[in-house]
Amino acid sequence: MAVYTEVSLDEAAPLLQSLGLGQLQSITACAGGIENTNYFVDTDQGRYVLTLFERLSFAQLPFYLHLMKHLAQHGIPVPEPHAITAADGAGGKPGDILLRLKGKPAAVVNRLRGRSELAPTPAHCAAVGETLARMHLAGRDFDRSQPNLRGLAWWNETVPVVLPHLDEAQSRLIRSELAYQNHVAASSNWHALPRGPIHADLFRDNVMFDSEGDAPQLTGFFDFYFAGCDTFLFDIGVSLNDWCIHLDSGAHDAARADAFLAAYQAVRRLSPQERVLLPAMQRAGALRFWISRLWDFHLPREAALLQAHDPGHFERVLRERVAHPRGLTC
Amino acid sequence: MAVYTEVSLDEAAPLLQSLGLGQLQSITACAGGIENTNYFVDTDQGRYVLTLFERLSFAQLPFYLHLMKHLAQHGIPVPEPHAITAADGAGGKPGDILLRLKGKPAAVVNRLRGRSELAPTPAHCAAVGETLARMHLAGRDFDRSQPNLRGLAWWNETVPVVLPHLDEAQSRLIRSELAYQNHVAASSNWHALPRGPIHADLFRDNVMFDSEGDAPQLTGFFDFYFAGCDTFLFDIGVSLNDWCIHLDSGAHDAARADAFLAAYQAVRRLSPQERVLLPAMQRAGALRFWISRLWDFHLPREAALLQAHDPGHFERVLRERVAHPRGLTC
Repeated sequence: MAVYTEVSLDEAAPLLQSLGLGQLQSITACAGGIENTNYFVDTDQGRYVLTLFERLSFAQLPFYLHLMKHLAQHGIPVPEPHAITAADGAGGKPGDILLRLKGKPAAVVNRLRGRSELAPTPAHCAAVGETLARMHLAGRDFDRSQPNLRGLAWWNETVPVVLPHLDEAQSRLIRSELAYQNHVAASSNWHALPRGPIHADLFRDNVMFDSEGDAPQLTGFFDFYFAGCDTFLFDIGVSLNDWCIHLDSGAHDAARADAFLAAYQAVRRLSPQERVLLPAMQRAGALRFWISRLWDFHLPREAALLQAHDPGHFERVLRERVAHPRGLTC
Repeated sequence: MAVYTEVSLDEAAPLLQSLGLGQLQSITACAGGIENTNYFVDTDQGRYVLTLFERLSFAQLPFYLHLMKHLAQHGIPVPEPHAITAADGAGGKPGDILLRLKGKPAAVVNRLRGRSELAPTPAHCAAVGETLARMHLAGRDFDRSQPNLRGLAWWNETVPVVLPHLDEAQSRLIRSELAYQNHVAASSNWHALPRGPIHADLFRDNVMFDSEGDAPQLTGFFDFYFAGCDTFLFDIGVSLNDWCIHLDSGAHDAARADAFLAAYQAVRRLSPQERVLLPAMQRAGALRFWISRLWDFHLPREAALLQAHDPGHFERVLRERVAHPRGLTC
């Protein structure tokens, strides 16, 4: 549970009405990311999520919100931001999806059905792979662009900051991996990789499934606030590192990885360069989260203090990816 | 004059001796960048510059120093870092070019002859263009890589931070330019641009000329501490924006730009994609320095306070580049 900004029913009601979403009936604080305040809001028309952004600014949010809108309108299951339909008396204009509540940037999106699946089977991984491929294709004509802000440049800036907190073996690993990734990013294969908007943080807790019936039905990807334009292969690497490993050891799970990749490729076949660089981008995905978790752990901002994840997990994942690179089997 | 760390002759002498550079005769504080302490040091063997790094860490410096060494060894006129030749009793090993003095990272490089040319003619611009092209070619087999840390990702992170300090027209310009650059960087033309280590800050005050005789002789590029791997075309755009404009208005000077580009292309011919994107990368160069000067001006760190440049200059340069794009004439 992470609520930073208290919002009462009376405060939220006019906003929901300006969106044409009907009469607010209840508002319930819910667990969310560590950088937003989230409420479930039910009206007489449907179920929504109200988010107040505690880290991202009005200037930063349009990319993320319009990406979600674009994907939703292209049939990808993601929370769709709702637009103001009539003047709200608080400065909003019809068509706006970036809202303001209690002086903070805010958005109201459709609430996804279902729940996260924290022990995924190959069937779950196949559903994630297929939907990720469809998302990559749907994003190609999105008309806004911003780079992955947690990409290579950020790793280079941040590794020197976390280095003093590492022991000798960790320090050697993180420096050699960073040098390797810089080397990869200077290669012609890397420059030839297909690119576009990627989620960049597609972990088990950012996907919903509805488990009624036999086959898992994926009901949505969410939390797009680390999205940016980068290689599709990096998105695949990040996802494989979470969906298709044993969380205790970091070891690869072949059945789940094969299911993920086969389903992905049934929608979008990997290019020759992507096939070559798949192991490198899995390493990149592990490095990215090892660095950010080291950062959060050793240099916490106040709000993040209680929720910092153990950086050791992604150190193990990286060591596994380096020691046991696995290319495609399909 | 910017001296942050006092170094006496007695403190510097053992370091110079461990480099095999002879007996130290004098040490003189000299003006430098705002982030380093620089001394001219003369020994009985030659003239050198001793730099103590006040911002960059031991972890960050090897890329820059080894790039300078690599370029020098490939015949590009840049300050060459000297390596320890014998154990120095202070922890350095033979071969090290990253040194330590008074607990800070340090380097000793050859001192370039000559002086900066702050009113360049077409002949000076041609010399810079030719040397830049040779530098780009020589850097292609440099075996370290790091991205340009003041590139697109940094612009996206920093624009929202400086926006509150801008008026409405400036805010519109910087946001639309950032969107344009994000769009360019998502294009196949941009991904096809040749890349490698670039200087990324090649302004008039970072080049030396020896003015003996008739033709200006370029004696070196220096201050490589914003170098990184990026498109060669971005380096060209940054350089054109300083060497080949009227500093009062920001307007393009055709004679100097043509001289620069003809000399560059005599060494390395621009690719079709580079020819298309040259105006866009000049805009990118202007945007990068407008953002960093806004940052330095409105959010100064202590040390930079006295030396912040007027951000208005690069706002004018950007407006000029947008209003009067100029492609190649050769």
